[in-house]
This record gives sequence, C-alpha cells and structure tokens, in this order.
Amino acid sequence: VSCLQDFFLIYCHIWDDKNTNVRVSLPAVCFVWQIAMIVLFGVFIRYNPESDAHWVEHMRTENISSDIENDFYYRYPSFQDVHVMIFVGFGFLMTFLKRYSFGGVGFNFLIASFGLQWALLMQGWFHFLDHSTGKIYIGVENLINADFCCAGSLIAYGALLGKVSPVQLMVVTLFGVTLFAVEEYIILHLLHCRDAGGSMVIHAFGGYYGLAISWVLYRPNLHLSKRLNGSVYHSDVFAMIGTLFLWMFWPSFNSAITDHGDGQHRAAINTYLALASTVLTTVAISSMSQKKGKLDMVHIQNATLAGGVAMGTAAEFMISPYGSLIVGFCTGIISTFGYLFVTPFLENKLKLQDTCGVHNLHAVPGMLGGFIGAIVAAAASEEVYSREGLIDVFDFEGKHANRTVGTQGGYQAAGTCVAIAFGLVGGAIVGFILKFPIWGDPADDNCYDDEVYWEVPEDEETIPPVLEYNNHMIHKHQDIAESNFSVEQS
Amino acid sequence: VSCLQDFFLIYCHIWDDKNTNVRVSLPAVCFVWQIAMIVLFGVFIRYNPESDAHWVEHMRTENISSDIENDFYYRYPSFQDVHVMIFVGFGFLMTFLKRYSFGGVGFNFLIASFGLQWALLMQGWFHFLDHSTGKIYIGVENLINADFCCAGSLIAYGALLGKVSPVQLMVVTLFGVTLFAVEEYIILHLLHCRDAGGSMVIHAFGGYYGLAISWVLYRPNLHLSKRLNGSVYHSDVFAMIGTLFLWMFWPSFNSAITDHGDGQHRAAINTYLALASTVLTTVAISSMSQKKGKLDMVHIQNATLAGGVAMGTAAEFMISPYGSLIVGFCTGIISTFGYLFVTPFLENKLKLQDTCGVHNLHAVPGMLGGFIGAIVAAAASEEVYSREGLIDVFDFEGKHANRTVGTQGGYQAAGTCVAIAFGLVGGAIVGFILKFPIWGDPADDNCYDDEVYWEVPEDEETIPPVLEYNNHMIHKHQDIAESNFSVEQS
Amino acid sequence: VSCLQDFFLIYCHIWDDKNTNVRVSLPAVCFVWQIAMIVLFGVFIRYNPESDAHWVEHMRTENISSDIENDFYYRYPSFQDVHVMIFVGFGFLMTFLKRYSFGGVGFNFLIASFGLQWALLMQGWFHFLDHSTGKIYIGVENLINADFCCAGSLIAYGALLGKVSPVQLMVVTLFGVTLFAVEEYIILHLLHCRDAGGSMVIHAFGGYYGLAISWVLYRPNLHLSKRLNGSVYHSDVFAMIGTLFLWMFWPSFNSAITDHGDGQHRAAINTYLALASTVLTTVAISSMSQKKGKLDMVHIQNATLAGGVAMGTAAEFMISPYGSLIVGFCTGIISTFGYLFVTPFLENKLKLQDTCGVHNLHAVPGMLGGFIGAIVAAAASEEVYSREGLIDVFDFEGKHANRTVGTQGGYQAAGTCVAIAFGLVGGAIVGFILKFPIWGDPADDNCYDDEVYWEVPEDEETIPPVLEYNNHMIHKHQDIAESNFSVEQS
Repeated sequence: VSCLQDFFLIYCHIWDDKNTNVRVSLPAVCFVWQIAMIVLFGVFIRYNPESDAHWVEHMRTENISSDIENDFYYRYPSFQDVHVMIFVGFGFLMTFLKRYSFGGVGFNFLIASFGLQWALLMQGWFHFLDHSTGKIYIGVENLINADFCCAGSLIAYGALLGKVSPVQLMVVTLFGVTLFAVEEYIILHLLHCRDAGGSMVIHAFGGYYGLAISWVLYRPNLHLSKRLNGSVYHSDVFAMIGTLFLWMFWPSFNSAITDHGDGQHRAAINTYLALASTVLTTVAISSMSQKKGKLDMVHIQNATLAGGVAMGTAAEFMISPYGSLIVGFCTGIISTFGYLFVTPFLENKLKLQDTCGVHNLHAVPGMLGGFIGAIVAAAASEEVYSREGLIDVFDFEGKHANRTVGTQGGYQAAGTCVAIAFGLVGGAIVGFILKFPIWGDPADDNCYDDEVYWEVPEDEETIPPVLEYNNHMIHKHQDIAESNFSVEQS
Repeated sequence: VSCLQDFFLIYCHIWDDKNTNVRVSLPAVCFVWQIAMIVLFGVFIRYNPESDAHWVEHMRTENISSDIENDFYYRYPSFQDVHVMIFVGFGFLMTFLKRYSFGGVGFNFLIASFGLQWALLMQGWFHFLDHSTGKIYIGVENLINADFCCAGSLIAYGALLGKVSPVQLMVVTLFGVTLFAVEEYIILHLLHCRDAGGSMVIHAFGGYYGLAISWVLYRPNLHLSKRLNGSVYHSDVFAMIGTLFLWMFWPSFNSAITDHGDGQHRAAINTYLALASTVLTTVAISSMSQKKGKLDMVHIQNATLAGGVAMGTAAEFMISPYGSLIVGFCTGIISTFGYLFVTPFLENKLKLQDTCGVHNLHAVPGMLGGFIGAIVAAAASEEVYSREGLIDVFDFEGKHANRTVGTQGGYQAAGTCVAIAFGLVGGAIVGFILKFPIWGDPADDNCYDDEVYWEVPEDEETIPPVLEYNNHMIHKHQDIAESNFSVEQS
Repeated sequence: VSCLQDFFLIYCHIWDDKNTNVRVSLPAVCFVWQIAMIVLFGVFIRYNPESDAHWVEHMRTENISSDIENDFYYRYPSFQDVHVMIFVGFGFLMTFLKRYSFGGVGFNFLIASFGLQWALLMQGWFHFLDHSTGKIYIGVENLINADFCCAGSLIAYGALLGKVSPVQLMVVTLFGVTLFAVEEYIILHLLHCRDAGGSMVIHAFGGYYGLAISWVLYRPNLHLSKRLNGSVYHSDVFAMIGTLFLWMFWPSFNSAITDHGDGQHRAAINTYLALASTVLTTVAISSMSQKKGKLDMVHIQNATLAGGVAMGTAAEFMISPYGSLIVGFCTGIISTFGYLFVTPFLENKLKLQDTCGVHNLHAVPGMLGGFIGAIVAAAASEEVYSREGLIDVFDFEGKHANRTVGTQGGYQAAGTCVAIAFGLVGGAIVGFILKFPIWGDPADDNCYDDEVYWEVPEDEETIPPVLEYNNHMIHKHQDIAESNFSVEQS
C-alpha cells in the first residue's frame, strides 16, 4: 500500500504538475481591472455634499449649524474600526497555517483593495445613483459599505485558503462583489429588510458563497498537502491578532451604518454583550471536547466571533441586553460544535473542504442571525420602541408606512433565504468558472504553501551568530589548509 | 548534589503529579456563571435613555438639539481604544514567555469576557441602580467602566501568569470584580475622590491584589520550571504589540470617562506627555544597568508604561504639561529599578513570585499616582482652574459643595490607602481559596507551559519542503526495497 | 581569494573592533535631554483654551454652544490613528530583518518619544508662540503635529536601520525635528503652501534627510553583515502588521489636520482610494518581475503605501475620486520599480545603502506628491470649489487674499524643492557629525544585529518538553554513573 502511495505521488508529480505561473495573468488582471476602475470612477463617482468643497454653501442651504454635523464625525471612528477588521482582522485570522501566512494576509490585502473599488461602483449603481446627473455621490458611509461588501468575498476566501491562486481570488472577488450588490439590493430595498451588521447580506451570503465554490473545486487528493494544513506555535499567535481585532471592533461593525444616536449606541452595546457571552460558551465546549479539558486554538480563534455574526441583524433592535447574551451563548455552542463535528462531516461526506471553517463562523451564525432578526422584528412593539422609535428603527416610511412588525419579520426571514440562495447558486457558478485550467492554481500536493506564489526567505536556522560564523570561516580555511596538507602527505 | 536534585525531580514527578484536568470544572464554571449572567441581566440590565429607542422622545423632553450630543459620540472612540488595551494590550503583553503565549492571550480573553459582564452588574448595583425601578440603565460609559473593572483582575493575572489554571483565573476575576466594585464605591462615592484613569482603584488595587494572591500561592519549587520562565526572540516581539497598544492608547484610557470638553482633552495631553518622558528614563536606567549598555526587553516592555499608570488620577487635573513630564520621568526610573532590584528581592526574601513584575508596573506606580493626585488636588486654586473649573473638575457640588482642595487632597490620599488595603486583604483571602487542591493548577515543574491547558501544535522543524518530503518518500521506498534486497542477500 | 577574504575578516575583527558600549552615552543623552525638555516645557508650554479648566468660561465668551465643539472631538480619533502609525506602523514595518526586530521597534519607540516632545517645542516656537505671554498653548492639533514631525526622523531611520547606534538615532532625531520645524515654517508660513498630509514637509524631507545621512555614513564593507540583512518567515509577517496599520490609518494621517467638515471628509476618501489603487499596481509589477510571477514581500510591505505618501498634499483638494486612483496607480508602479532597480543602483553606483528603501517609499513619492499638489492647486477653479470653498481650502485670506491658484501652484512646487534641499543639506551635515567615532555604532560585520544593543534571549531550540528535559537529567545522571563505573572498570 505504501508503495502504491509513493507511486501515486510520483505519478502526480509528472502528470498533475499544474502550471502555477501567474507572471502574465496576475499582472494582466491587476492592470486591466485597475484601469477599468479608473475609467468607471471618472464617469460615475463624485464627492457627495458632505465631502465636497461646496459644503459651506450646503450647510447654509440645509440650515446645518456646525461642521460637527457632517456625517464624517458620526461614522469615521467606526469606519476605521471596520477598516482594521477587513485588513488586519480577516488578514491575520488567515495567518494560522504554518506556511501560508504570506498568502493569508497578502492575498486578503490584494482582493480587499480591488473589491472595495468595485463595491463603490456596484453599490453606487444600485443604491446611490442620482438619475438626474447619472453620478454616484460618495461619502464616508459609502466607504463603510464598500468595506462591508468586500467582507463577503473575504469570508469566501476563508473556505478556499491555500487551495487557489491569486488570480482565482480576484475572480471570486469580482463576482462576489457583483452578487453582493444584487442580493443587497433585493434584500434591503425590494424586501425592505433591516440588516445593519450584515448577518444576512454579508455573513450568510459570503459563507455559502465560499462553501459552494469550495464544493465545486473539491480536491480528492488534498491529503497530499496535509503536512502543511496545520498551524505552528507562532502562527497561532499571529492568528490571535486577527481574532482579537475582529472581536474588539465588531461593535463598530454592527453599529457603523445604523441610525445616528440611539441606533449606533444600542448596536454597539448589544454586540459587545453577545461577543462576551460567546467566549465563555466556546471555551466550555472546547474544553469539554478534549482529553484533560485542553483548549483548541481553532475554536478560540474562530467560534468566539460567532456572537458578533449572529447579532448582525438584531443589534440595532431592542433585543435587550440579556437577549444579546442569550444569542452569544447559543452561537458560541453551535459554532464550536460545528468545528468539532460539522467540518469533518462536510469534508468526509459532502466532499467539501473548508479550510477556515467558514461554515461554522459565518454561514450558520449568519443564517441564524437573519432568523433572530426576523423574530426580534416580529416581536417589536410600540411600548418598547415608542411610536417614533419603531418608525425610525424599521424605517416604516413612504410606501412601507403601513407595514406591521409581523410582516417585517416575514420579510426578514425571506431576506435570509435570498442571501443563502445567492451564495449557493452564485458560488456554484463561480466555482465552475474557476475549474478552467487557466488560473494557475496549485497542484494537490502543493496547497497551503507560500512557496508557490511568494519569494519565501531562507529559514531561521541559517542565522549564525557572528562569532560562530567567523569561526566557521576560519575553520573552513583551516580545513582547506589541512586537506591540502593531507593531500601532500598522502 | 546533582544526584540529589535528579532524585528530587523524579520524586516530584511521582508524588507531585497534580491533576490538571479541567474538563469538568472549566466548562462547569463557564456555563453556570454565564447562565447566571443571563438571568441577572434579565432582571436588572436595561438600555439607558441614550441607547434606547425612546431617544427621539428623550431628545425632545430634554431639549437636546442634535444626535451628536448623544454620549456615544463623546466616548465611543475612547471606549474602543480602551477595549483594545484590555484585549490586545494586556493580552499580548503576556505573550512574552516562550511557551505560554496561548495562555497569556487566551486566558486574558476568557476572563476579561466574563469580567466585563459581572462588572456591569456589580458596578451597576453600586453606582447606577435606579431605586424606583430596580433597574440598571447602561450606555457606553458603563461599557468603559466595565472594561476598567476587568483591568484590575487582568493586572492580578500578570503576577500569576503561568502558575494557575483557567478555573482559578475565573475565581480571581469573580472576586476581583466584586472587590473592585466595593472599593470603587468607597473611594469614588463615600470619599468622593476623583480617579478617572484609576491609579488607585484600578492599578494600586489590581497590583496589590495580584501580589497578595501570588504570595499566598508561593511555590518553593518553581525553579523546576525555570527552563520555561523566559522569552524567545519572537515572543518578545509579540509582547511589544501589547506594550505599544497599551502605550499608545493610554491617553484614551485616562480620558475615557473624564468630563466632556476640556476634561477629556487635558487628560489625553497629560498622559501623552508623561508616557513619552517615561520611555527616555526607562531606556536610560535599563542601559546603565547592563554590561556594555545593552537594553533589556523586560524593561522596555513594561516600565515604559509606568507613566500612564501614575497619571491615572492627576491626568484630568491642571498638573501642567511639565508636571506630566516630571511624573513620567520619575516613574520610569522607579519602575525600571523595581525590575532590577525589587522583583528579585520579593522573590528571594519575601517569597513572592511575580511573573510579569506587576509590582513595578502597577502596584507602585498606581500608589504613587494616587498620592500625586492627592498633592495636585491639594494644590489646586481658583486662579488656575477658574471658579467654575474647580467645581467641575473636583465635582464640588451637592453635599460636597463646601469641601476645600486641601480636604480633597486628604481624601485622595485616604482613597489610595483604601485601594491598597482592599488589594492586600482581598488578595490574601482569594489566595487561600485558591489553595484548595480542586482547581487544576499545574505542578511546580509544569508551570509556564501551554501544553498543560492547550492543544499545542507540532513544532516548526517538521515543515519539510515538498521536494524533500517527496524525496524522503522515495528514499523510504528505496530503503525498503534495499532492505528487502539485503535481507534476501544475507 | 577565499583565503584573502578570511584574512580580511580576521583583520577586521582585530582592527575594526568598534566600541559599541553605550552604557554612558545613551543614559547621559536620555537624562540630559529629558531634563532639558522638562525645563523648557516649564518655561514655555501651557494648555490651550480648549484643554484648560477655563474652557467653560471660554465657551461663554466665544459663544460656543456645546462641549462637542471642542476640537478634541473633531481630531482625537484621527490623532489616535496617527499615533498608531508612528509607533506600531513605523515600528513594526522595521521588524522585517531576521535579527533586528528589537532594534526596529524599540529604537523607533525611543526616538519617537523624544522627538514628539522636542517637536512640541520647536513647532510651538515657530507656529504657536503667543508673543504677548511668551507661551506656547497646546491642544490635540499640536499633538498630531508633533507626531507628524517625528515621522520625518523615523523615515530617516528607515535608511539607517541596523547600521547606527541608538545614540546616533537620538542625534538624528534632535536635528531632524529642528530642521523639520524650520522647513515647515518656510513652506507653510512664508510660502503659504498647503500640505496637510506632508508629502513635502514630512516624506520628501524625511526621505532625503535619511538618504543623505546614509550616503555620508557609507560602509564599504557592509557585505560582511549580509548574512543578517534579510528577513525570515515570521519577521516578514511581523512587518505586515506595520504595513497594514500604516495603510489602514493613512486616510486619518492625511485628514488629521485638514479643515473641519468637508476638508477632513474629502482627504480621507481620496487617500483611501489612492491606497487601494496602489496595491493592485504594486502586485502587478512585483509579480511581473519575478520568475513564475512570485510576489516579493519587500514590495508588498512597502510599495503598497506609496499612494498614501503621494496624496499627502493633494488629499484635501478636489482632485476627484478618479484622480486619486490615478495617483495611486502611478506611484505603485514607480515605487515597485524603485525597489527593483533604483535601490540596487543607489547601493552599487552611488554608494548609498538604504536598508528599508525609503528612497522608493518616501523620498520619490513625497516629491511626486508635492508636484501633484502643485498641479492640482494650479488647476483649481471657483466652479469646482465654489468661491468660499476655494478660499477655505487654500486659505486665501489676509495678505494672501489676492493670490491666484496659478501662483499657489508655483509656490507649492517651490515648497517641494525647499523640503528636498533641507533634507539633502541637513542630512549631509548630520551625517558628518555622526562620523565622529564617539557614538558607539557597530562594526561593518556587526550590523543588523540586535546582540549589539540588546540582551537577546536564548534561541528557541532550547525549549525541551518537560519529559525530554527530565529524561535528559536522568540520562545525565546515568552517564555520570556509567562513566564512574567505566572508570572503575578500566
């Protein structure tokens, strides 16, 4: 058997030697798409009244009393927190593999930088296009939304980590952002759902999108790379940087685009509480599952965040502080169980390889978050919210002025289903596109390895202290001298 | 002698083989306490008017002109900075040990997540309970205070790092938060002290609390773990992440709950200056103390922060910019001397093992900060503060309207003593509770080791590059073939 | 030849054994300069009206309606982001060397802490001195400017990394901050340029300052340290922490001191877009330049930031979103080409050793940013800015009320030249000062090595698991026993 395996390994090397050369495709994609962004921005994107130099005039006409009323001061601190989550949070969370830290943080950096530009356009066309001028006017809220929109594709990257080329990731992002903008338009505008922190539109969509792609790209011989599919001590500590910045700033994520005043305030409190609760149940289940109660870093790095995902829709509602704790309590348990049982099940039975376990961190908690939002919305009352509060929170204005909270709950649940459907169908299609043998993805025995796409420095063992180094030089010299001598002697 | 030591080592292994299995106790504590939190939150905790959906009505009745006047916009950026200090700052500062980085950052994460929930309740009962409704109404200021309250227990963890089980840490936090709320009530409300950045209530209390626990838990054979009580190159770099985020955000820590306007502004400036000054004197003493003037990472990681601790009380006062520099100057020297001389003295003479040197970073600078605050308060004058300024800063209103600055100074000094007393007595009691042999703490030769409570990944040396790996497989194959051959031959 | 090299190596060791002992000089510099700061702060620095306890009175006299109008709330979140860039951003960006991470992050910490104090004084004397009282009144904007001022010297450190002593770095900072304050006074006040994000005054100045120093300090035998002039896997991941925090917070950097309202808002948007665009072109060029399209971490860590540098002047102008993308597009290409071709050229032909490549990240993009600002200023029109907007953005008030945008463009270009001239001439002079053999700099074969100025912990290989350790002890015992036995036997 071992002989057969060896043969197979050599065979693979000869026939499956995939071409991972991206020297043409990667620069081409980057240049062409970036030039397209410049052209489209030139045609469509302008500053909005709050970021335009006409602001002083705008203040006068709109009777705004002070610069501090500029939306910048309401949202910029939250924007920066979200920005940190996208680049350091998601990026460092994916450094946990022993030899894929460059790819984890580096490709995340690349695709988020592209995705946010494309998102400004896609979301702009759907939500912010001024039909009289044909322009999209952007401000800080658009930047937050663009970061959110990227998050969907970064989540999908989590399922694909180590198994795809940067060119494939760019394709995943291009379609991911496009699909996101469409499902977001359907959910937020046509169905008139509320989803400030994106349980549905970001996490459920992004999670199922990544899972569907990964399912189509199933690699039966991925076990050939299993020596690299794991962490080392310091890579686990790096990943904790990502975990903690995601965890700490999640209150900003869920409150970044909620209503000014109580909306942002309440969303931050609810998320803060849900996340705290999640940590305790994650630790409990992780400890129960292992011999001698030892904790597993995979759970601590990931499942502790599930409470933030699950509060993405309900955070701005009057779910009440203990309600937030309950949400965190349950999702911590569910997510950790997912890592223990569902991920292995998916891999062995459903042929679905999910490197970071986005199923347990994003897909399921996101779906739950959508349904929690539906239930909390359906249970809303004028007593709890006040009449004006109810209208503000659920935006029961214009053509939605007569919608009841029950109806709203139904639409919220429907929105969750739309998000999942978009993720699954869109992901399957994108997966098939990525199967074309032109994208430079690695061979099955070459996954999870930075060597494929990065110039990796020499290893640490090669750092000799200066004295040893010099001694070594001297010895070498002596050796040569001696060998000369011995040659002469002999 | 060496023979005897070896014998002792083996003996220890046989007889002192402590049971570190926390598979029942840790999940039990997490589950039961988290459920208790949910129940208590359900009974007591509600949103305050600024985070409740009735905010629009509240604005009208209170004649608030704009959403931007919501306390959220005054304090949320500072809150997020404090949040980073608690989880990344304290967490990564404790990753410096070569094989306890998981425990440092992970247990910090666990106990802070529990502590902040318990703190919302304890501080709520003491300070924010509405006696007419029996409810505690929370907003962003409560979240900041809860994070502060956790800090006391996280400081204590610094003295215990590597020597206790996670269950013990949960107990430390439960009592730590409780004691904190009581001493805070005495100091801030009964004595009517000012302590915005918590020199007294957080640092002096937390430091002496940890030291007292560690003193009771003295391990005479801790030298058996000394191979792990130290750093490696990269763990020292990780610890600098903690140091820098604490250092950078300390101005936010000391200004987070001070008065709107000049109070927050001044506290940030004073802390910024004190910390800058501390860095220079820390470097000076560290360099003076070593052969060839080499710097010691322990000093740079820790003593550079002492200026922020010592400004915790006086930061909001008119200490003046040069006064802040002087405070930083002195505490940098004192703290570094502490690491050089006092920590070894404590360990050898007082039988007090203080892993992170919280004595030098928190206990002493916190105590000094309390007394500095007393002196600066006693020296306050209407000329410097203006009449209204003096009333605002020291809150000389209601029954304290006639208090003089001299009296205030006396009360501030008394408050410092109360904090220390609570730390020492409370810590001693908690220490005795933790001596029961039921908590799963590690044996003396097993301290500072993540292996005890964590699934630790295999070592880095086991990453073979793919070619070597395959060659190895091929060679193995050949070896087998050859050995077969040689068997046949022989 | 090898023999000759060995001989030379030994010769170097004997004759070039530089004295790197800084046990007297480093503490002396730290103490004396810190005491000087305290004295000068005592004489000159006071709180400004917004951070003084008289604020309540000030509000009344100035008719300020709310505490939220305190500049603290406009600028503090941006200040904290800038603070993170200075200490974590610059600090961790310089941890990429395999054995100079302590020096990279630690000396950055030291010199920034000194520099910001000196900057408050120098900038205060030039820009904020109240001639009636002889005092400098400081608030949060001064703290931001002080951090900016340090940045110039930290950039210079990038060119010198690993080749100078901490005492030399203190000298670099002392003169760097002084020169900065003078050139800033000339550029911003005499020439009346706009440079909110400091393309000219920070990056062009700092870059050329560092390059000139490095040119004077050229080490012909630096190749003797080449074994340490490179990264290892984990040091590259550490450096990504620096890169990302710089990249994410650059919008705050460029908007921190721009006008309230649209000014800050627009500067953040423009920088955000330019940086995103830079990432794609950096990746494209990096991939094109290497065999099989592999990416080089040096490019990803550095060139991705060039767009932020180049937007330092124009970010507050109406450059328009697509204009920002174009700036990022071009500077990403130029900067990466710089790393590929210009840095080797500088080293081999111009005898200029630039450890971090500040030429490509700061000097050239800063210079370009200055000229881009000049062009955008010259192209400004009332149509685009509105009449009031034009006056606000370019500060066409007082004696500059009649300046045209064309003239302004000319002055902007002149300002860029002034910054470069100050950098080159100032750097050359400081370089000659640093050549005196009294500063404790390392020998040519001892560069890039933390051993010289730091107590470096033992290596990681020395962490035996407890069982092995004990087995080892037991074996040692047995060995002794056996050797005794064998002695007896023989």
